[in-house]
Amino acid sequence: MAEQTSFQALPATFETDPSRYVHLKLSVEGPVARIALDIQEDHGLRPGYALKLNSYDLGVDLELADAVQRLRFEHPEVACVVITSAQEGAFSAGANIFMLGSSTHAFKVNFCKFTNETRLYLEDATEHSGQTYVAALNGVASGGGYELPLACKEIYLIDDRKSAVSLPEVPYLGVLPGTGGITRVTDKRKVRRDRADVFITLAEGIKGKRAVEWGLVDAVFPTSRFKAEVAARAGAIAGDGHPERRGVKLTPLEPAVDASSITYRHVTVGLDTAARVATLTLTVPADAADFPADPTVLGADWFVVRAFRELDDAILRLRFHYPEIGLVLLRTVGSPDTVLALDAALLAHAGNWYVSEALGLMRRVFKRIDVTSKSLFALIEPGSCFAGSLFELALAADRTYMRDTGAAIALSDLNGGGRFLMGNGLTRLATRFLGDPAHAEELAARRGLIDGAEAAELGLVTFAFDDIDWDDEVRLAIEERASLSPDALTAMESNIRFAGPETMETKIFGRLSAWQNWIFQRPNAVGERGALTLYGQPVQAQFDYRRC
Amino acid sequence: MAEQTSFQALPATFETDPSRYVHLKLSVEGPVARIALDIQEDHGLRPGYALKLNSYDLGVDLELADAVQRLRFEHPEVACVVITSAQEGAFSAGANIFMLGSSTHAFKVNFCKFTNETRLYLEDATEHSGQTYVAALNGVASGGGYELPLACKEIYLIDDRKSAVSLPEVPYLGVLPGTGGITRVTDKRKVRRDRADVFITLAEGIKGKRAVEWGLVDAVFPTSRFKAEVAARAGAIAGDGHPERRGVKLTPLEPAVDASSITYRHVTVGLDTAARVATLTLTVPADAADFPADPTVLGADWFVVRAFRELDDAILRLRFHYPEIGLVLLRTVGSPDTVLALDAALLAHAGNWYVSEALGLMRRVFKRIDVTSKSLFALIEPGSCFAGSLFELALAADRTYMRDTGAAIALSDLNGGGRFLMGNGLTRLATRFLGDPAHAEELAARRGLIDGAEAAELGLVTFAFDDIDWDDEVRLAIEERASLSPDALTAMESNIRFAGPETMETKIFGRLSAWQNWIFQRPNAVGERGALTLYGQPVQAQFDYRRC
Repeated sequence: MAEQTSFQALPATFETDPSRYVHLKLSVEGPVARIALDIQEDHGLRPGYALKLNSYDLGVDLELADAVQRLRFEHPEVACVVITSAQEGAFSAGANIFMLGSSTHAFKVNFCKFTNETRLYLEDATEHSGQTYVAALNGVASGGGYELPLACKEIYLIDDRKSAVSLPEVPYLGVLPGTGGITRVTDKRKVRRDRADVFITLAEGIKGKRAVEWGLVDAVFPTSRFKAEVAARAGAIAGDGHPERRGVKLTPLEPAVDASSITYRHVTVGLDTAARVATLTLTVPADAADFPADPTVLGADWFVVRAFRELDDAILRLRFHYPEIGLVLLRTVGSPDTVLALDAALLAHAGNWYVSEALGLMRRVFKRIDVTSKSLFALIEPGSCFAGSLFELALAADRTYMRDTGAAIALSDLNGGGRFLMGNGLTRLATRFLGDPAHAEELAARRGLIDGAEAAELGLVTFAFDDIDWDDEVRLAIEERASLSPDALTAMESNIRFAGPETMETKIFGRLSAWQNWIFQRPNAVGERGALTLYGQPVQAQFDYRRC
Repeated sequence: MAEQTSFQALPATFETDPSRYVHLKLSVEGPVARIALDIQEDHGLRPGYALKLNSYDLGVDLELADAVQRLRFEHPEVACVVITSAQEGAFSAGANIFMLGSSTHAFKVNFCKFTNETRLYLEDATEHSGQTYVAALNGVASGGGYELPLACKEIYLIDDRKSAVSLPEVPYLGVLPGTGGITRVTDKRKVRRDRADVFITLAEGIKGKRAVEWGLVDAVFPTSRFKAEVAARAGAIAGDGHPERRGVKLTPLEPAVDASSITYRHVTVGLDTAARVATLTLTVPADAADFPADPTVLGADWFVVRAFRELDDAILRLRFHYPEIGLVLLRTVGSPDTVLALDAALLAHAGNWYVSEALGLMRRVFKRIDVTSKSLFALIEPGSCFAGSLFELALAADRTYMRDTGAAIALSDLNGGGRFLMGNGLTRLATRFLGDPAHAEELAARRGLIDGAEAAELGLVTFAFDDIDWDDEVRLAIEERASLSPDALTAMESNIRFAGPETMETKIFGRLSAWQNWIFQRPNAVGERGALTLYGQPVQAQFDYRRC
C-alpha cells in the first residue's frame, strides 16, 4: 500500500491552546469541566480523509492532550471532567480509518502511542490530580470512540435504542482495538473473557441493559434523563471542587527550530541526522531551587514546569519529526547541589497543588521517555547535574557513560518513594536492581555526591571511563548503536526497559501494542486486499487464512 | 523473500523416541541424566541448510521435548539432568539461521512457540517433577544456544578463553533473542537492564569472570576441572534421586490420519478444511476412574496419560499441519460423574509420582491449549462430560455454548487449588472472574451437576440455548468466526486469554513473542536486503533507519 504520509503532513508544532481548538469545546463551570467532541470533518491534519462521525486524527488528539494538561494547570479547581459529544447521535467513531489506512507504519505506531499516552493521562488525572474523568456517551461510541471512555473512571451511555458501545476493529478492519481497548475491557473493567471475546468480534456492539450487565458501561439512562443524570453524577463527584487552588496559565514554548537544532529556554536538542543521533541537553539555572512557598506566583515560567514541558515537547518532536534519529544522548548542565536543593524544596512544598502538579508532570515526562522508541544513552560528564530527580533521566536511559573523575551524581528522596514510579509500578531504582532489592533500598537512602568510579561500583552507571578512553569509548558505542537494525532495537528496548511486574499500562504498551504493530504489517490488514486497506470500499477483504 | 517451507517439509509425526534420536544423546546414570547435543548437520528436517555448530531446527526440538517428557515418565528416579554438548568447543549456535531465513512466517511463529514451550518444560520439570536441569556449557553458547541454558536452573560455563555466552540476534540478524532470551535475562536472571542492553547488542558475547559478575552464568570452571565440577554439582543436586519411583515406558500414539480426521484411542479430530473448522472430541471410557493405588502397573495405557498425550499431539498437529484451520470445536463424550470420580481418585493418589506426573501432563496440555493460535469454542451438549478437570477445556475456550437442558457440567477440587494454574499464575476460574474473586471461590467450592440455564446464570458458560435455537446459533457463530481475519483473531485471543497478572511465562508468550512476530514481518529483517535474509552472505544488510 502506498505510504502517503509525508513529514510535511505532520503538525509543525505539538502545541495548541483552547483559543485555537478546532475540534473540542472546552468549558468550565465551577468544579465541573466539560470537553465536548465536535470534530470538524473537513479539518483533518492532511487532505484525503473526512473526520466524519466525530472520528479523530492526530490533530484532535493533540487538542485532547492539551485540554487535559490545561485543566490540571489552568483550572485546578475542577474536580470532575465530563467528556461528551456536541454532535447528535455520535459520541465518536474512533480513529479515522481512511487516515490510518493511508499512513506509514511508523506514523500509525507513533499515533497510537500518543493516543495511548493521552488516555493514560485521563487516568493519571483521576488518580493524582483530583480530576475525575467521566464519559457521557450521548451517541454511538465505536472503536477508539469507546476506548476513550474506557480511560474514564465512569461511563454512562444514553439508552435511545440506537446508541451502542462497540469495538468493531476485528470484524471490520482486521486489526485490534489496540489503543488500550482490549486490555481495559479485560483488566480494568474486568469483563469476563468469553464476553470480551463476543463483544470484540461483534461489529454492532452492545447497548442498553446488556452493556451494563456485561460491565461495559456503568449505567444507561433514557434520553429524557440522560443530561440530568450525568450532571447529577458529575456534581456529586466534584462536590465543591478545589476552590483553594488558583490556576496557572500555560504559556507557549515556541522553540527555535533549524536544520541542526531545536532550542527552548532550558532544553536544546542538537540534531545530527546523518549520524542518526540527537543530543538533548537540559540546563539547570543556578537559581532553580529558589522558589516561593506558593510557586504559582511564578506562573508557567517556573523552571520545573517550563523545563519539563520543553522536555515533553522535544520528545514528541523527536518521535514524529525525526524518525531517522535512532539514538538520543541525554546531557544535563548545572550543579548537582542545585538539583538536590530543588528536590528538597519540591518535597517540602508538595502539599501545594502546583508543586504536586509539577511533580506529576515530571513523572509523566519520565514515563514518556520510557516508552520512546529511541535508544537513550546518558552522558555524565563534568559540569553535569544528574542528581536526584534528574538522575531519573540516567535511570531511564538504556546505558549510562560517566567520567570516572570530575563528574558527580547523587540520589535524593525523589528516586525512592512513589513520586516517579514507572509504568510497571516500581521505581526506576527498583527496576534496575530487580535482583537485589536491598541494594536498591540502600541506594534510595544514600546521600552525597558520588563520582564515576564509585557509581560504577554501585551499579548506578554502566561504565566509567577516564579522560584517555572516554572519547573513543563513547564514540564507538554511539557509532555501533546507530548501525543496528532500528526495529530490533525498538523491540529489544520495549522488553528490557520493563523488567519485573506488568500493569495494565505496561500491558498496553508492551503486549497489546506489539500485537497491533504486528498486524499493522500483515497483508491481511494492510495488503492490497487487506481489510484496513479496503475499508469503505465496495470490495470485500481477502484473507490468507493460515493461522500463526 | 521466498516462502519455501511446504507442508511436506514438516515432520509427518511429532513423536519420536530415544532409539530414533538423530541429534541427542540421552544417558542415565543413577539419579543423574545427561542430554548431550550432537546435532548432525546433514540431518535437518528439510534440505537447504546444514545444522552446523550444534544449531537446531524443529527436528532437534522434537527430540529435546521427547527427552524431557521421557525423563519424567520413564526415568522418574532421576533428580538432575545435565544438558551439555558432545561436540568440541560448541555448546550450541542456536536456531539454524538458514532454516529460519527460508521459512514461512507461520512456520517461524509456530517453531518459536514450540521451542518456548519446551524450554518452559525444563523449568516445569525442575519445579514440579524433582528433576533439576543444569546447563554445562562446554563450548560457545550463542543465540538460542544460550536461551536453552537460560531455561535451566543453573548454568556453568567452561573458562577456556574462547567459550562465551551471547545473544547476537540483534547485531547479526536484526531480530530478537525471542525464544525467552530477553525475558529470562532481565526477569529470571535479573541482569541489570543496562548490562542486558550491552550484552544483547554485543555479538561476541561475554565470557569468564564477567559472565559470572553480570549474572549470565552461575560459575565458570577451567577446562581441566570443568567436567568434575559439573559432575560434583549434579551429584549434589541429585543426591540419591528418587529411588522409590519405577518408570513407565511411553508407548507410541500413532494416530490414524486421513483427509478428514485424525483418530487416536480417546481423541478424534474431525477436519473440515473447507470450512476451516476442526472438531476435537475427547471420549472418556466408563471405567476411566478405576485405577489401582499404584497406576504405574497400567503403564502408558492408563487413560489419563494416554488421553492427554493424544490431546497434546493433536494440538501440535493442528498447529503445524493444519494452519488453515482457524476454529477448533471442543467436545467431550462420557459421564460427568466418571470424570468427577476420576478427579477424586487423582487427588487421593496425588502422592504417587505417576499420578502427580499425570496431573502435571494435564496442566501442560491445558497451557499448550491456552497459547494455541486457534479460536476455541466448547460445545456442551447432552452426553458430554465437561466436569472437573475436563471443565478446564471449557474454561480454556474462548466461548462456551451449552444446551440449556439435558447437559451438565460440574466443578471439582481440580478447578480451584493450584494444580492447573495458567501461565499468569491464576486458576482459569480466577482469570475468568477477575472482577469477582469471591464468586470464583464460591464456584471452586461448589459441587454437583449444573445444567445449562444455571451455568449461564453463574457465568460458567457464555450462552445456553434451547433445542430450537441451538443449531442455528452455533452454526452462525462458527461461520462468523471462520470468516474473520486470522491475524486479528490470533492477536485478540493472545490478549483476552491472559487477563490479570503477568509472569515471566506470559511475558515470553505475550510481549516478547509479539515483538518478535512483528520483526519477522519487517523488511529490515526479512526483506530482500534484510539482515535475516542476508545472514552468511558477503553482502551487508540495508536498513530503513526510521524508528517506529
